[in-house]
Amino acid sequence: MTLDLLITLDRSGAAAEGLTRQIYAQLRQAILSGRLRAGDRLPPSRALAGELDVARLTVATAYDWLRAEGYVAGRVGAGTFVAPVFEGYTPVETDQAVERVETASQPLERAPGAETQPPLRPPLTAWARRIQAIPLIGAGSMDGGASGATFDFRPSVGAADLFPWARWRRIVAWQDAADPLAELRAQARESAARAGRWDALLGPLETRAAIAAWLRRSRAVRCDPDQLLIASSVQQVLALLARLLVEPGQPLLVEDPSYIGFHAAFLAEGAALRGVPVDASGIRVEALPEPADPAAGGESADARLLIVTPSHQYPMGVTLSLERRVALIEWARRAGATLVEDDYDGELRLEGQPLEALRGLDERDEVIYLGTFAKALYPAGRLAFAALPRWLIEPVARARAASDRHPAWRDALAIARFIEAGELERHLARMRRVYRARRDALVAALREELGEIVQVGPAEAGIHLLALLPEGTDDVALAERAREQGLAIAPLSPHYQAQARPGLLLGFGAMGEEQLAEGVRRLAPLARAAASGLQSSERGG
Amino acid sequence: MTLDLLITLDRSGAAAEGLTRQIYAQLRQAILSGRLRAGDRLPPSRALAGELDVARLTVATAYDWLRAEGYVAGRVGAGTFVAPVFEGYTPVETDQAVERVETASQPLERAPGAETQPPLRPPLTAWARRIQAIPLIGAGSMDGGASGATFDFRPSVGAADLFPWARWRRIVAWQDAADPLAELRAQARESAARAGRWDALLGPLETRAAIAAWLRRSRAVRCDPDQLLIASSVQQVLALLARLLVEPGQPLLVEDPSYIGFHAAFLAEGAALRGVPVDASGIRVEALPEPADPAAGGESADARLLIVTPSHQYPMGVTLSLERRVALIEWARRAGATLVEDDYDGELRLEGQPLEALRGLDERDEVIYLGTFAKALYPAGRLAFAALPRWLIEPVARARAASDRHPAWRDALAIARFIEAGELERHLARMRRVYRARRDALVAALREELGEIVQVGPAEAGIHLLALLPEGTDDVALAERAREQGLAIAPLSPHYQAQARPGLLLGFGAMGEEQLAEGVRRLAPLARAAASGLQSSERGG
Repeated sequence: MTLDLLITLDRSGAAAEGLTRQIYAQLRQAILSGRLRAGDRLPPSRALAGELDVARLTVATAYDWLRAEGYVAGRVGAGTFVAPVFEGYTPVETDQAVERVETASQPLERAPGAETQPPLRPPLTAWARRIQAIPLIGAGSMDGGASGATFDFRPSVGAADLFPWARWRRIVAWQDAADPLAELRAQARESAARAGRWDALLGPLETRAAIAAWLRRSRAVRCDPDQLLIASSVQQVLALLARLLVEPGQPLLVEDPSYIGFHAAFLAEGAALRGVPVDASGIRVEALPEPADPAAGGESADARLLIVTPSHQYPMGVTLSLERRVALIEWARRAGATLVEDDYDGELRLEGQPLEALRGLDERDEVIYLGTFAKALYPAGRLAFAALPRWLIEPVARARAASDRHPAWRDALAIARFIEAGELERHLARMRRVYRARRDALVAALREELGEIVQVGPAEAGIHLLALLPEGTDDVALAERAREQGLAIAPLSPHYQAQARPGLLLGFGAMGEEQLAEGVRRLAPLARAAASGLQSSERGG
Repeated sequence: MTLDLLITLDRSGAAAEGLTRQIYAQLRQAILSGRLRAGDRLPPSRALAGELDVARLTVATAYDWLRAEGYVAGRVGAGTFVAPVFEGYTPVETDQAVERVETASQPLERAPGAETQPPLRPPLTAWARRIQAIPLIGAGSMDGGASGATFDFRPSVGAADLFPWARWRRIVAWQDAADPLAELRAQARESAARAGRWDALLGPLETRAAIAAWLRRSRAVRCDPDQLLIASSVQQVLALLARLLVEPGQPLLVEDPSYIGFHAAFLAEGAALRGVPVDASGIRVEALPEPADPAAGGESADARLLIVTPSHQYPMGVTLSLERRVALIEWARRAGATLVEDDYDGELRLEGQPLEALRGLDERDEVIYLGTFAKALYPAGRLAFAALPRWLIEPVARARAASDRHPAWRDALAIARFIEAGELERHLARMRRVYRARRDALVAALREELGEIVQVGPAEAGIHLLALLPEGTDDVALAERAREQGLAIAPLSPHYQAQARPGLLLGFGAMGEEQLAEGVRRLAPLARAAASGLQSSERGG
């Protein structure tokens, strides 16, 4: 057999190293595929080099590599053979490997000559099958479409271009430190402080102290640093909570409508979602299930976990009134329920003093408070936090240990120094002014262009508002058409559990005032067509 | 009632803003605690200001805040009253809230006057109860003790002080880019490329391409960029795999001994661990359960997942021979099993050419390959990756979406540029030289000081070796005593499923050659005492 028939060299700009590796790889492949078998003799390196028109050293080195790895045996000069290891080795045909059954759940096939053939791979778990049915969040389309759209109305995208990048980079890269190993030393200090402290699994102590102080100052949220979890995202906190608190089939109370990402984390655990309606004052507390009368039995006693967004209800944009806040805490106490307060946009109050966080109001220490820096900093920052009731600290630390240990230290330590330097509060104050102006521009444009069709929701906080459309409008189709025209907009109706209303979530964080107005002008004919199409077809029907 | 009795002002360096907030907070607290009730009248702001000796505006502003939040009603001038919201409000006594039952599983208590009292909080899930029994990894002591020890022999700690910090920082902070918004633009590009691609949940495309190319170059691991998952740690990948592939009670095959972190991720899902013995050539493939004879039935067919560390077996330090590698892949094919190859220390081969990765040998594309940058870069880097079989890509992406979305982009994008600039391979080449010299120093010191007691295992890769102790030595107690003397050392025996052997895992990554020798000199009397204590007590017994 002439080995050069097996070997094809790509000489385009290849260095000697490249040729050696090509020869090595193709011989190895020939052995693994069974074309060369145990005991087959390789040609002398000089002969193969001649046939391939390469330097002898090139071939000899490839042989050395194969020998070092055990593919071939023998010594140069005495002949080189495919190693006896490959005696009886049955290679898989590559085509066969590719063309295989696609799921483990298919019935087993009988291969010719084999009595039975085992399944090709382990089956997926019930959890894995469950998440196949959950819409994918974070891949773009569920959140209002791609960034890169000409008009980025996505509801959670802020003005990352106004972030103080230069100052942030100085902090992240420790440029303010004279010591070139400052970062390493900070990590070593943190590491020493963590030693033997299981609660250190919750994140760097320095970061937890800085965030606790900031929450106290800005949101009157009471929590000790040792109650704070640093996580990579709110989604991660929700996933941990779902695993710790929800068995398959158990109910989870959510606002209706509410954020699809909440649903995903809990649906993955098999939670039965129960929507609680939202009106202009937030979640309707009187619609919450009362603790079951033990005489009557009933399942409502199981509904022991409720997620709410009091500062800026997502997606409706309303603020939970103080009256409802107090009532909600009383309900939780009666029901033995734990409240999960996602303080969505709590740091971006645009009008008036922010209302007290539930975590501040609750004297029982039974509210789980969630926040994120995704908006205050920039989305890729990926740093979120949770203030936990004391009984949950150790379970969460253990869940963390079993799932991903601890967050990225670099950004976690950087945010601590960013807060301590006063940069966070300075940046937020500036952004509140910017977002207020942008909101005003968006509201004005909507009134001007679409006043007769849309009902513009409140926007006292955050960077999005809701434009309700006439009943029956197909908001999903409208958002799709808008996307085709370069407008990234999320529809309202997919956020509902029941009785969906049509609307558009319009983010005003990512665009300047003129671009917002221009975006609305482009949107207007599409929205009118969607609404009138509905009405004409209703009339026609 | 005189309100000033309720209010205590801290005037130490307090600005006017601070005084306003103190008055506001204490009035709010008085309302929530029931000391002020619905309809109670607050004193005129001028009067209270006089009593408290503050400016009238200070009190008026506090009243404004309370009014804005709904705690009080009325207008300045016409009198200010606690809002009717608090009619019938039952405050919780703070003492009572603190002194409450500590677990939800305790029997319900009957409160006086209440027919039944609901449990105080939702119960923990079966998963949460399971993880309570798993030793905590990552809190320090399980990994050989604290850093900060004088002699850091922890097995996975490298020479972070030799990392090219200055170059890394230039890359992380985009200092090489003229554009101050370079990072933002890179994220926007990545975001646009991800749009609508669910596989983008696996991590930045740029990073996956750079790592795939590096793996091909350096480890001959075949994987397309779209098969790569970027994760925050190997632990995170294991946790995702465990959720996708292991139902409670299902067996998981692990090397015996093996890494405790592997165990934790799978024990959390309720896996039944089955140890497979390891000898000088790695896992003993002939000891693996053969596919069950369908006539005979039997549970071995369930053992469909095996985790191995072929490059540098953890903790034994041996390398899996090529013969065993081939046999392992044949076993997996017969058993329909999926191999999880943790290429632990694969990038830090100290002697000879590395052996082929299982993922390179397997033509079926059924090997899950895991790697991490924790050692190549530095532990806080928190970036790991997995090359996945095609059928696992979508389940893993979905698991990611449900659990934490995607990794920290900053470091993920930075590692891509670090690889593309050739920095990673340059750094690794340098570190191999450094670690080789450190290993030699450690081996020489062990032979010199403890040659008659310990049996030094191989160290052809990585940054730790194993020193086996005489049978019966209490290695856990020895490691504990060493820790007290400032030597952070992990014991071997906790890594076993069965028939534990005593030994010490000695990392040589974090210390220079002289310090290694000095550390061994300090260790020697402790080790001799532990071994002889054993022998004399055996003789005495």
